[in-house]
Amino acid sequence: MRKKLLINKEQIVPSRPDFEVIGAFNPGCTTMNGETILLIRVAERPIQTNQDAYLVPFYDTKSDAVLVKSIPKNHPDFDFSDKRVIKNHEQNYLTSLSHFRLARSNDGETFTIDAKPTIFPENEVEAFGIEDARITKMDDAFYITYTAIGIYGINGCLIRTTDFVTFERLGIIFTSDNKDVVLFPHKIGGHYHAFHRPSHSEYGKLDIWLAKSPDLTHWGQHTVLLERRPDHFDNHRLGASAVPFLTDRGWIEIYHTGDIKDEYALAAVLLDKDDPSKVMMRSKCPLILPEEHYETDGFFGKIVFSCGAIVDQDDVSIYYGASDESIAVATITLDELFSNLEDEEMMRV
Amino acid sequence: MRKKLLINKEQIVPSRPDFEVIGAFNPGCTTMNGETILLIRVAERPIQTNQDAYLVPFYDTKSDAVLVKSIPKNHPDFDFSDKRVIKNHEQNYLTSLSHFRLARSNDGETFTIDAKPTIFPENEVEAFGIEDARITKMDDAFYITYTAIGIYGINGCLIRTTDFVTFERLGIIFTSDNKDVVLFPHKIGGHYHAFHRPSHSEYGKLDIWLAKSPDLTHWGQHTVLLERRPDHFDNHRLGASAVPFLTDRGWIEIYHTGDIKDEYALAAVLLDKDDPSKVMMRSKCPLILPEEHYETDGFFGKIVFSCGAIVDQDDVSIYYGASDESIAVATITLDELFSNLEDEEMMRV
Repeated sequence: MRKKLLINKEQIVPSRPDFEVIGAFNPGCTTMNGETILLIRVAERPIQTNQDAYLVPFYDTKSDAVLVKSIPKNHPDFDFSDKRVIKNHEQNYLTSLSHFRLARSNDGETFTIDAKPTIFPENEVEAFGIEDARITKMDDAFYITYTAIGIYGINGCLIRTTDFVTFERLGIIFTSDNKDVVLFPHKIGGHYHAFHRPSHSEYGKLDIWLAKSPDLTHWGQHTVLLERRPDHFDNHRLGASAVPFLTDRGWIEIYHTGDIKDEYALAAVLLDKDDPSKVMMRSKCPLILPEEHYETDGFFGKIVFSCGAIVDQDDVSIYYGASDESIAVATITLDELFSNLEDEEMMRV
Repeated sequence: MRKKLLINKEQIVPSRPDFEVIGAFNPGCTTMNGETILLIRVAERPIQTNQDAYLVPFYDTKSDAVLVKSIPKNHPDFDFSDKRVIKNHEQNYLTSLSHFRLARSNDGETFTIDAKPTIFPENEVEAFGIEDARITKMDDAFYITYTAIGIYGINGCLIRTTDFVTFERLGIIFTSDNKDVVLFPHKIGGHYHAFHRPSHSEYGKLDIWLAKSPDLTHWGQHTVLLERRPDHFDNHRLGASAVPFLTDRGWIEIYHTGDIKDEYALAAVLLDKDDPSKVMMRSKCPLILPEEHYETDGFFGKIVFSCGAIVDQDDVSIYYGASDESIAVATITLDELFSNLEDEEMMRV
């Protein structure tokens, strides 16, 4: 496997002069007209000009603009212990606002990045940002699933485009709280399929679910596909990462897993070609661990988080966010990937 | 309005001799062959025989049986402060296991209650119980929506029956965490409609959502229908209660609301006949408050929680659980109900 750092935050032009880019990471990816396309998650925040207060951004529906809220650093009702989110019993605030930025490449490694936002929060469901796009090419269009964080929670949403110039919002498809919504690239057994990840239950765990749809907008037939393994590396939380791709042996899904210390890994699972609810094989050890300096150090260190992979013959290029700050690619052969898998026994946590 | 206590827990035969019934409440209701049918939520727990430990019940898939777990009262990893749930960072346990029990009446007030459970938890999604049934009569069948609590969180599920003897489980329709799923009794504009209530987000609030479906099993087009009103009685949490019914003026939905002290009220909202996403009118003050002794005292006092109403000409009989322990009915005329409503202004929390 070969890893390479591709894009860092310094390459991104902020959306406005009083904001700074703190991360360019977790890109969705696809190919169009021979080019590799990335939809980069760009996280920005107001340049912090006040020593005594945190300035946090949010999209305001009434004024159709991004506003800045000032929260005094000594405010007793806010918890500042997580640098990604300022917590409050009534309303959390993210310390940055994310949007999507398009990048293109002829070789899959050298990218030209748009100077302006490609998709920006534009409604109350997206008030605290849009994050972690996955791009599924299907029926002559591209379907972008993403996490919208807003005043109605953390929802899985869908956008359709044919050209990456105009975008049609198709709304919420998995309701709060849900992350890591990823569509399969074609129907199986008459239904569209998606991974998703319900969360924040005091009863359930952070597992990968499978759902089906007749039309991409209405979803049901929910089942739990992949659970945490208490005695493996993926023992704390799971989520689907890349858009799944079909091989001779079945569907390969690259998934991410975080342990109790928020140290991430990428791993893989092989699903039955005709019935992806059947788990055939699964990583016996992590496929990608945070080891390089850009993976261990950054805005939030020790995170490797993929939102897409490009398969070219026997090579799989896994694009991923490193430390919630930069973008890297790991290239691995299908043989290498399969040798990481072992037969899956059904297990229950 | 006339209120009457109908059923208490002493009238329910436990499902097994070593269990005791601690509540008979929150019944779904409908009519069939001239009879009023209730599906009562019966909450049971093991008779507490050990002074030093809590005995909690749960359904176990492997043995297809209800097992009893003993949790020492001095266990440092468990939080015993809520009598309904024993909390633990890894897995919560409910102190009781709920199932559904059928009751029938010729006059809507005197009920004959089945001696055995009618619908009982039978899979891991239901491992900690099934709660708060709503019964929607539609297309010559009865559709029962209910809250399933299990090892995959709190999910909204669907069961179909034509006779209340055999029941077909149609699975999860709203994923974790979700409660208060209520189906409309017929299609509107070509789609089935449902209320639901996503929960447990650090961003979103406990509001009533509306969703649409082509087939009752796949759901989408999610929107937020009814939000908390900061300056009204319904300022903390909301959920749909009864199956909505159509009047000359539009759909009436009886909903429940809990305030910050977990004191509940029932209220009503009027929705447009042809587009129930349009809120026309809403209660200016509570329709039903916990005032009678059976509403203020009980397993969990000051709760009034409806899962259904029967409309007979101008009279609306609202069946509801009182204090998570008993069942009462409140009868109100449509005129009284409408006089409780005021025009709704769009407001955002």
